[in-house]
Amino acid sequence: MQRVLIAGEWIESVHNGNFQATNPATGETLAGIYPISSWTDCDRALDAAHQSLKQMLHQDGEQRALFLEAFAAQIEKNAATLCEAAHKETALPIKPRLADIELPRTISQLRQAAQAARDGSYTQAVIDTKLNIRSCFAAIGPVVVFGPNNFPFAFNGISGGDFAAAIAAGCPVIAKAHPLHPTTSRLLAECAKTAVDQTGMPAATVQMMYHLNSEDGLRLVGDSRVGATAFTGSRTGGMALKHAADIAGKPIYLEMSSLNPIVFLPGALDERCKTLIIETADSGLAGVGQFCTSPNLLFVTEGPSTERFIQGIVDAYRSRASAPLLSFSGRDALHHSAQSLIEAGASVLIGGQLQEQSSGACYCNTVLYVSGKQFIENGKKLQEEAFGNLTTVVRCANDTELLQALASLEGNLTASIYSHSNGSDDALYESASDILRSRCGRLLNDKMPTGVALSPAMNHGGPYPSTGHPGFTSVGIPRSMQRFCTLQCYDNVRAERLPGVLRDLPPHDRIWRYIDGSYVLGNEKN
Amino acid sequence: MQRVLIAGEWIESVHNGNFQATNPATGETLAGIYPISSWTDCDRALDAAHQSLKQMLHQDGEQRALFLEAFAAQIEKNAATLCEAAHKETALPIKPRLADIELPRTISQLRQAAQAARDGSYTQAVIDTKLNIRSCFAAIGPVVVFGPNNFPFAFNGISGGDFAAAIAAGCPVIAKAHPLHPTTSRLLAECAKTAVDQTGMPAATVQMMYHLNSEDGLRLVGDSRVGATAFTGSRTGGMALKHAADIAGKPIYLEMSSLNPIVFLPGALDERCKTLIIETADSGLAGVGQFCTSPNLLFVTEGPSTERFIQGIVDAYRSRASAPLLSFSGRDALHHSAQSLIEAGASVLIGGQLQEQSSGACYCNTVLYVSGKQFIENGKKLQEEAFGNLTTVVRCANDTELLQALASLEGNLTASIYSHSNGSDDALYESASDILRSRCGRLLNDKMPTGVALSPAMNHGGPYPSTGHPGFTSVGIPRSMQRFCTLQCYDNVRAERLPGVLRDLPPHDRIWRYIDGSYVLGNEKN
Repeated sequence: MQRVLIAGEWIESVHNGNFQATNPATGETLAGIYPISSWTDCDRALDAAHQSLKQMLHQDGEQRALFLEAFAAQIEKNAATLCEAAHKETALPIKPRLADIELPRTISQLRQAAQAARDGSYTQAVIDTKLNIRSCFAAIGPVVVFGPNNFPFAFNGISGGDFAAAIAAGCPVIAKAHPLHPTTSRLLAECAKTAVDQTGMPAATVQMMYHLNSEDGLRLVGDSRVGATAFTGSRTGGMALKHAADIAGKPIYLEMSSLNPIVFLPGALDERCKTLIIETADSGLAGVGQFCTSPNLLFVTEGPSTERFIQGIVDAYRSRASAPLLSFSGRDALHHSAQSLIEAGASVLIGGQLQEQSSGACYCNTVLYVSGKQFIENGKKLQEEAFGNLTTVVRCANDTELLQALASLEGNLTASIYSHSNGSDDALYESASDILRSRCGRLLNDKMPTGVALSPAMNHGGPYPSTGHPGFTSVGIPRSMQRFCTLQCYDNVRAERLPGVLRDLPPHDRIWRYIDGSYVLGNEKN
Repeated sequence: MQRVLIAGEWIESVHNGNFQATNPATGETLAGIYPISSWTDCDRALDAAHQSLKQMLHQDGEQRALFLEAFAAQIEKNAATLCEAAHKETALPIKPRLADIELPRTISQLRQAAQAARDGSYTQAVIDTKLNIRSCFAAIGPVVVFGPNNFPFAFNGISGGDFAAAIAAGCPVIAKAHPLHPTTSRLLAECAKTAVDQTGMPAATVQMMYHLNSEDGLRLVGDSRVGATAFTGSRTGGMALKHAADIAGKPIYLEMSSLNPIVFLPGALDERCKTLIIETADSGLAGVGQFCTSPNLLFVTEGPSTERFIQGIVDAYRSRASAPLLSFSGRDALHHSAQSLIEAGASVLIGGQLQEQSSGACYCNTVLYVSGKQFIENGKKLQEEAFGNLTTVVRCANDTELLQALASLEGNLTASIYSHSNGSDDALYESASDILRSRCGRLLNDKMPTGVALSPAMNHGGPYPSTGHPGFTSVGIPRSMQRFCTLQCYDNVRAERLPGVLRDLPPHDRIWRYIDGSYVLGNEKN
């Protein structure tokens, strides 16, 4: 019997078919047959979410916080089993990646979200006592989360950042797990269900389906019962969902492709060429290049160290073993993208082919090369994302060409600029950063973009088409919760009818509110 | 010669045709021939805006504040001329409406926006000193503002709330004036140009066209040079623009139709029937019913005072003179909507026809009537907006029917509930407000929704289809500025390269920033 988590129970799925996962390291088909849910499953989940929302609207943040913490504890308790399952389904190493980095990050996100739900400052309460007008952000309604393939815990629809933010904001979540890691998702959903039961949350606070036909996915995001959707994944998938949500007038937040350009100014290469080679290879090959923030474009200009730098990158990519990608289809897609880039004019410095004699989904570490002129002339095609262990060096003849090339970049999540520590690159830095600033969500100096810190100041977002709206972030609590909120104003509403966060006396002393022109913590008088 | 304001000059428009305005009070064609701009005009404006944006990005808020204040002063100086022109083009009375209410409001909005630009708290700077990650909201790029017909000053694309918010956020504005009041718009644009010149702002800080073919309008909002669009107007127009912006991945903020339901609970009618009749008629006929927040649906249940209340509304609508609408086409559209509502089952209590023997665009004050049952059964058709001096009473047999009727409401900007002051309506209030809360942006008690206060706590927004996104407001500074901002993060960026608002030392002592978990004013140490 194939079950999905709907309305608080593992019920039999009314499905359109089923699937099994594959171990990308071995090619072995993994045990566990999982359903491709039909619209009937979606419909049941939507009804249940709608019912649970009503209950959640009358809860306070403390109850959601207790749930998120109980869920975090369950994940912690089941860490070994979870890492084992995720390792089989993704080929990501248990140590350090899954057990020491991603799982702790996931737990940390849930706990940060709990704290945010508890203190309530995310509601951004604004009180105008003179006019008796008050407003705050509140739950937008049931949130559908489409998780990506590349982080089986930290971005999983049933446990990741979007999930945590939506629940903390008071929204029931309907998770669409990624079909590459169904067992991991099932185990996480079991943890979530235990936490729901332990903390007495409404039955459909968390629900999960493993897979959907694309037609049902499109219908889901535009359904009238949905509040909003969060999606992390490919541009093709994201754009189709965006269209379906847009025409229904439903907010959708997308985190799609990003090439994360890195600009190495001449002074930086002269000053610390060797270090930069190691940093670049470490970042570019982290997670086999399957991070949203993986550096896919390396911009350099002609200078005394340019050749040495490029050769160093090539050597580093050659000397490091290539690990299996997340799936065989992902490997094939990467190869296809590499071929497209080559057809668009890129030449191969190393790699560019499937790895022979590997039983796993391995692709040779690949470095491509184009001139700045080529990039300017054929920017669109040369900005096709190649998701995996591939990066492209863009070698510009001079500063002018560099700036022109940067100006042809699409929107990205990140952009990094390395410059000499003594300030000798500063004039060029200024021109480059002016151009990049409007083309990225996060601008870095002397630092690779991988490793998205869990900070309230983080922006894991950026201009279209890296996301669907440049004003939102999917990482960084409480700002990431904003996506799942609607603005609610109370005008002359009688005091006893106001939500707690908008009453004269705050619900507790940890909430920041903006009252008559000043931010006030709890009940302090300014 | 027909001129538009582009790149800092009144240049000859490359136009597709021209038009003249009409005095809706007399039917007289007004002097002044205005161009319907071609794509060439749009293209020039976009290029110029793009250039000016670059300069504006290097300005601080103080410079924008000075411009906004100079503009406000120009409007104040030219108040008499402006009111005269607006009166001719809209038939709105000079006193009190234009001179004593709308013009002061417009000036006040500009000055509030100036203050917000100056203090910079709108950037919502977040600083994580430990990780050296910092983020803030910054100008999204050139903003296109489509102004509506109903507020020739306060919502005009060249002077209204969207304009003020966009400029304050650092975005050049391309205003598309409403073709019903071109001379008013020209006079305002002249004031704006004077202020640009006086304060040395970039030439294309403000630009204006009078009219566009719809094809060019659609192309404009999706152009790559545009940052975002704000639109206030009809659902048909808004939805077409939304579609064009959505497929181009461009943010668009829409304020479309809203029926602003008012629920009169039985106790309220028993307690203060007479007052409520006056309040309702005052609000429903304010601006000849042409406010976004005009109460178009009055819900009552059977009770001892119901008949008296309905009769009172009818008497009030009968006894008050009907003033000219904003245009003859608006009058015809209102008549058409009234007919649609009647076809959908509404009966006429009074009005429902063009006013005879009037040389102006007058429509009889109209009150329609449907039962709660009808509204539940035919809710979609009975929620067609009738923009003008028309309201519909929905008479429900009992509480259950009332709640069902409310549950069939679409998204609205506002919803109001009147209840007995002694608490006797409180049980029903709770059920009704639960339903209405998710269907409106602003919930009111014992108060009509017209008169949208300029408060930081205001929400002039709401769930789709009253707007395109329920998380944004078009009134209420600084929140309304959020629409024209993009989130920009600086990760490990060297101190001297940071924008002023993100440096350790704030640019001045009036800015609120969120630093390491606390809101801090200026340089105070918490």
